[in-house]
Amino acid sequence: MPLDPSFNESVPQGDNVSRKVCDHCGFVAYVNPKIVVGSVVRSGEKVLLCRRAIEPRKGFWTIPAGYLELAETPEAGAKREAREEACANLNISGLLAVYTIAHLSQVQIFYRATFAEPEIAAGEESLEVGLFGWDEIPWEDIAFPSVKWALDHERSVHLGKATAPFANPDGETGGLSE
Amino acid sequence: MPLDPSFNESVPQGDNVSRKVCDHCGFVAYVNPKIVVGSVVRSGEKVLLCRRAIEPRKGFWTIPAGYLELAETPEAGAKREAREEACANLNISGLLAVYTIAHLSQVQIFYRATFAEPEIAAGEESLEVGLFGWDEIPWEDIAFPSVKWALDHERSVHLGKATAPFANPDGETGGLSE
Repeated sequence: MPLDPSFNESVPQGDNVSRKVCDHCGFVAYVNPKIVVGSVVRSGEKVLLCRRAIEPRKGFWTIPAGYLELAETPEAGAKREAREEACANLNISGLLAVYTIAHLSQVQIFYRATFAEPEIAAGEESLEVGLFGWDEIPWEDIAFPSVKWALDHERSVHLGKATAPFANPDGETGGLSE
Repeated sequence: MPLDPSFNESVPQGDNVSRKVCDHCGFVAYVNPKIVVGSVVRSGEKVLLCRRAIEPRKGFWTIPAGYLELAETPEAGAKREAREEACANLNISGLLAVYTIAHLSQVQIFYRATFAEPEIAAGEESLEVGLFGWDEIPWEDIAFPSVKWALDHERSVHLGKATAPFANPDGETGGLSE
């Protein structure tokens, strides 16, 4: 029967930052910022959105995105997330934006993409998926601020008004209450 | 006296990927890709290089770069690394490149930067630091392939021949033997 992990803060040898070290086994739980990868997938004048079947923000709409896995390129991760969440096969067009959600220790790397095949369907983590024109996007029910940023930034590039990549809009940190 | 950590592979509840789980305490050692942040710092026609005082690649030249810390933006991390390695205060100009070193599970986010103050000096992790014109760069003694990519890409932008950001050069994965 495993013991409960019990971590206390201390500075490991050769380090200069306090880390969580397990009392039982001495394991140093280095906690690193996490990388979220995803894409704004465009088909003509419409973009792909997925309604979340899981917390956080279950029932709200998002672009396909999730944590990058080990030994995976961000482009491959963005394609995998679209497969998992929308049963979609993508072509990645290029980098759209790098956003930072510092309070979550997340760096989000989002790409522009198109469909390699036209079929989409709700994956396990989605209640439904769909293609939306700009005026059809359910803006009140978007899951996270950075999804709005990505949709807005992608549209600027699509309309020829800007060149990727973007970073956080001025002064915004990605909190839901902003 | 802490036990030695003893990890075995298993799929935690609610997950779909095998992770390392400690036999002693049940701790799930989620291993995530790591984010390296850094910058090509330009002063006129010269760029900042640091000779590494630590392994790997001790004695070889690099740009200031290192692991992003928790709750730190990549821009702030790039500035911190330049302070630590070259005692330099930077202004970040913009994103230069996002590289993937998949076999190391690293995503590298590099910025273009200038000096906020002209002083530089070797920090604890550097044997020496210096400013180098393009023809003065010690190309045979550059620490990592992605340092060459970043120097090359930054020069293209500096000369007006390209617009940032860049990704890995075609077919390159960042291995030292390439």
